[in-house]
Amino acid sequence: MNKLMLAKQANTLRFLSADMVQKANSGHPGAPLGMADILTVLSYHLSHNPKNPTWLNRDRLIFSGGHASALLYSFLHLSGYDLSLDDLKNFRQLHSKTPGHPEISTTGVEIATGPLGQGVANAVGFAMAAKKAAKILGEDLINHKIYCLCGDGDLQEGISYEACSMAGLHKLDNLILIYDSNEISIEGDVALAFNENVKERFRAQHFEVLEIDGHNFEEIDVALKTAKASKKPCLIIAHTKIAKGAGELEGSHKSHGAPLGEEVIKKAKKEAGFDENLSFEISEDVKIRFESAVELGDLEEAKWKSVLEKSGKKELLERLLKPDFSKINFPDFKGKDLATRDSNGEILNVLAASLEGFLGGSADLGPSNKTELHKMGDFVEGKNIHFGIREHAMAAINNAFARYGIFLPFSATFFIFSEYLKPAARIAALMKIKHFFIFTHDSIGVGEDGPTHQPIEQLSTFRAMPNFLTFRVADGVENVKAWQIALEAEVPCAFVLSRQKLKALSEPIFGDVKNGAYLLKENENAKFTLLASGSEVSLCLEVANELEKQGVFCNVVSMPCFELFEKQDKAYQERLLKGKVIGIEAAHSNELYKFCDEVYGIESFGESGKDKDVFEYFGFSISKLLNFILKN
Amino acid sequence: MNKLMLAKQANTLRFLSADMVQKANSGHPGAPLGMADILTVLSYHLSHNPKNPTWLNRDRLIFSGGHASALLYSFLHLSGYDLSLDDLKNFRQLHSKTPGHPEISTTGVEIATGPLGQGVANAVGFAMAAKKAAKILGEDLINHKIYCLCGDGDLQEGISYEACSMAGLHKLDNLILIYDSNEISIEGDVALAFNENVKERFRAQHFEVLEIDGHNFEEIDVALKTAKASKKPCLIIAHTKIAKGAGELEGSHKSHGAPLGEEVIKKAKKEAGFDENLSFEISEDVKIRFESAVELGDLEEAKWKSVLEKSGKKELLERLLKPDFSKINFPDFKGKDLATRDSNGEILNVLAASLEGFLGGSADLGPSNKTELHKMGDFVEGKNIHFGIREHAMAAINNAFARYGIFLPFSATFFIFSEYLKPAARIAALMKIKHFFIFTHDSIGVGEDGPTHQPIEQLSTFRAMPNFLTFRVADGVENVKAWQIALEAEVPCAFVLSRQKLKALSEPIFGDVKNGAYLLKENENAKFTLLASGSEVSLCLEVANELEKQGVFCNVVSMPCFELFEKQDKAYQERLLKGKVIGIEAAHSNELYKFCDEVYGIESFGESGKDKDVFEYFGFSISKLLNFILKN
Repeated sequence: MNKLMLAKQANTLRFLSADMVQKANSGHPGAPLGMADILTVLSYHLSHNPKNPTWLNRDRLIFSGGHASALLYSFLHLSGYDLSLDDLKNFRQLHSKTPGHPEISTTGVEIATGPLGQGVANAVGFAMAAKKAAKILGEDLINHKIYCLCGDGDLQEGISYEACSMAGLHKLDNLILIYDSNEISIEGDVALAFNENVKERFRAQHFEVLEIDGHNFEEIDVALKTAKASKKPCLIIAHTKIAKGAGELEGSHKSHGAPLGEEVIKKAKKEAGFDENLSFEISEDVKIRFESAVELGDLEEAKWKSVLEKSGKKELLERLLKPDFSKINFPDFKGKDLATRDSNGEILNVLAASLEGFLGGSADLGPSNKTELHKMGDFVEGKNIHFGIREHAMAAINNAFARYGIFLPFSATFFIFSEYLKPAARIAALMKIKHFFIFTHDSIGVGEDGPTHQPIEQLSTFRAMPNFLTFRVADGVENVKAWQIALEAEVPCAFVLSRQKLKALSEPIFGDVKNGAYLLKENENAKFTLLASGSEVSLCLEVANELEKQGVFCNVVSMPCFELFEKQDKAYQERLLKGKVIGIEAAHSNELYKFCDEVYGIESFGESGKDKDVFEYFGFSISKLLNFILKN
Repeated sequence: MNKLMLAKQANTLRFLSADMVQKANSGHPGAPLGMADILTVLSYHLSHNPKNPTWLNRDRLIFSGGHASALLYSFLHLSGYDLSLDDLKNFRQLHSKTPGHPEISTTGVEIATGPLGQGVANAVGFAMAAKKAAKILGEDLINHKIYCLCGDGDLQEGISYEACSMAGLHKLDNLILIYDSNEISIEGDVALAFNENVKERFRAQHFEVLEIDGHNFEEIDVALKTAKASKKPCLIIAHTKIAKGAGELEGSHKSHGAPLGEEVIKKAKKEAGFDENLSFEISEDVKIRFESAVELGDLEEAKWKSVLEKSGKKELLERLLKPDFSKINFPDFKGKDLATRDSNGEILNVLAASLEGFLGGSADLGPSNKTELHKMGDFVEGKNIHFGIREHAMAAINNAFARYGIFLPFSATFFIFSEYLKPAARIAALMKIKHFFIFTHDSIGVGEDGPTHQPIEQLSTFRAMPNFLTFRVADGVENVKAWQIALEAEVPCAFVLSRQKLKALSEPIFGDVKNGAYLLKENENAKFTLLASGSEVSLCLEVANELEKQGVFCNVVSMPCFELFEKQDKAYQERLLKGKVIGIEAAHSNELYKFCDEVYGIESFGESGKDKDVFEYFGFSISKLLNFILKN
């Protein structure tokens, strides 16, 4: 190892990052400077192809601390990715390729990070995905590593414990976490809030733990070699100084989230033997070192391609990369009364049997969520992933499965516990990835388990989130149609499903599930339109029939997907919304006012009791609805 | 120890629980039967007063696995709490005192539990609250313990690691967690998803760890004695059999969430020497044992009262129990342009200086949230709690502070990370406790940190939650008024605050913050009403002024609290909503359609860029708003 050269490389990463933050007058220089030495040595271990960032067997590099993005961008630029020096100079500017936190629109960014802890769980997910990919495609085709740079913030977040527990359970020896332990947090010394024995913590989760000086090139190198050879997931505790090399700001929490200042940067450059008057400076020898990744990567991918040719797995890989949804033999639920968690369970089994990359699991609610994939075995041999009671890690792990390239993952839990995983669902939406959320035990229909288990505001939460489709289906037929849309949709989707049996609906009169809402019952003299979703749709039909006997005519609209209905043109929407429109939903659904004159919902939390009693109490019975409508 | 008597007591708890679930034909018998032995021995250690469940120095008993509620209710009934045998027979029925999961409306329930992991974090919170209470009132007045029964589900959830990390950090020797380790989860054997070395995990977090047979009375007793004497927080790993004593169902995951069945129960009763033909049977000797808590509790409280009399702390305690909000000298922000996170910071400091029980902290964002309480020291001596990067545990810990009886806690983080703590905020709302949430870095005003850090759908989430007030204030004066309402409100409140400076508003023309929305500008010829909150209010005023120059008149409504406006009568609402009402909010706020004809919001995620550029891009500039309104 040429230490002088390594130092020059590391300092180039440092000063590029510092210059970026300085020019933007915004950002986080501390972590990039602290981790530059590690990333420099890591660059000699990393197997990747900057000219083809989607090469399947590349090592994955995750910056869990997304605020260190300046370092990532500097590294991507130097390594020959499609990210120019001008892009670096545009750091944190509107529509630049270098936003404040990494986003996947930037080439070379594996996954969007920023909210702390997500990246660690993503890394575990990538490692699980790689293990599964190796099972499917063979270990000669899939044998890469996952490197994750993380910090104190990541390791304090609950999601990181959850995810690492999974990593230890599955003996993910392809996973290498590098913990940038700089002892600094925003409120000051990390010890103010964190004094765990991190080494013992990770050992308790069955990791191999190494401890090094994160500024000693040799120690970093040896640790990476040891970690790569380990038979367990590995944590490298790298003791570092935040803002290493930044003079008086080295070791200070003031360097975390604010530019270092021109003077500090100049002094640091001078001290490191760089020209203090130059910004965004990259010397030829440094560039050559980093850019060797291009040639090496090309070579490695070429070798891999020849292995692929001989493997007999080419067609399988094609199918995994481009799954064909047109030949799935969906079950026919026409005329069948059943809980939508049951219809969904049948659909899931068909999908998993039809699509090699379709897999997933529940946060220990498989038998209740009806998400068990029968006779398809358990991960890693099979398709059922037992996530344990870890909703948040489940969703972040599945985000990585979805980003891996060949998988279609689903995450399941009760709808109420969607709250535990919401931050990861948001990242899924931000990335517009195919990740399916199965949320059973919808609404007060949960019954006896009571208000802590009855979703009330969760529909509003998911409907308000961009790039996300929430399907609250009313029967098995809607459930199938929703899945057909979801498979083709370029965004994550959620299925909100009932625990209780629902009545099968008749055929649509106008429109369909694909339009978000459609007409189920129509009368040209309709005074009212009753608009509902899920368990309330058949109730509305019954109410409409009762009203008809009294000479009051109603149209009935089923609206399984609010977001898709929002996207319809005005003519379509108006065709459905005739007369006085009353939205009826066993939830706190103020967003329905967008289309309704009145909303008949639930303004409080739920109640523990038999589901029929609870529905009656909250007014979801024929007689109470009749009263309400006739008063209008 | 009379083992025969203990067994009879435990079996009484068992069969009461089993009978309850059987009669309700719904519920969870497995955990109650598994933990009955532990609870029986614990009853001899517990210091509490069933006739005064609010006695401040009582031990706190938390069932983190709220699904074991049948056991808790049986225990409360037997111990002489105001919970009758009829209440037990009404288990899980609508409006009974014995809902599916414990709620605080039931006497003796310390805190609502159900969503797993919450109770463990609550227990840590109670232990922290007790430590703080002891600092304020003295250790002769506050010296009780916190016992928490938890299971695999609790320990797999990330929140439990976060909270226990805090417990170890603060050396909470008053905390005793009892881990019901029955090796069973819903999907089957716990080992399917969980193989951590729990002992080492907790030792890494600085717990003392004991390991016992959870059905051996002597081992339980010795462990409790050891734990009470320990100088560290203590985890007792109790190896148990789920559904202990239930014959063929003992040890089976089938006993977790479904009635055992008449036959199994009869057989079990017979085997235990109970009359198989009797249900809800309590023998006199058992009743006497449990009910001794009444006399003992009365005695202990009497002793405590005499200590209180001599302590000179009586007035202080009175003030803590009933804080006087009428004499707070709030800062005057009239005419001052400033970021609302700054005005809020000043208010927090005034509140903390004025109210002995007011305290709190941030999830490592104090300097950014502006929540540092200056010169008020750090917990446990002082009032600043450094929660670390643990939003979820923070909120659950503060739920316990709020339930402790003498504290007014606040939790702070960026608004986007409200997602990480939402499940705990929901429990706060369910309990209607005073817990204040400080959410700074509102909306796209966050700027360069980009979409992972810019809240879009979070306002909708909180506005859709029952029993919760979300204040998105537009200036310092609104901020003060919002706090005045929040202090008196019987529900938790959130303050959504800007990072960027906002212009000071003029006086209200009609209505005020207390009405949720009020008129800031009025013209009798108004064609439009512009309704906004937070950072968009002054923008709307500028737009209205521009429009006026063009002869188009607008009213302007500031709506700091959607939920309070919803509660106003129709006349008030109509007075504010004149002409065409356009809601203007830098968020995805479909709920505004409840009051608006049009909503000018944000339909996508945010963007990384200078806040001014981002606002302009999303249309929140005078010129773009003018265009939009004039088209209407």
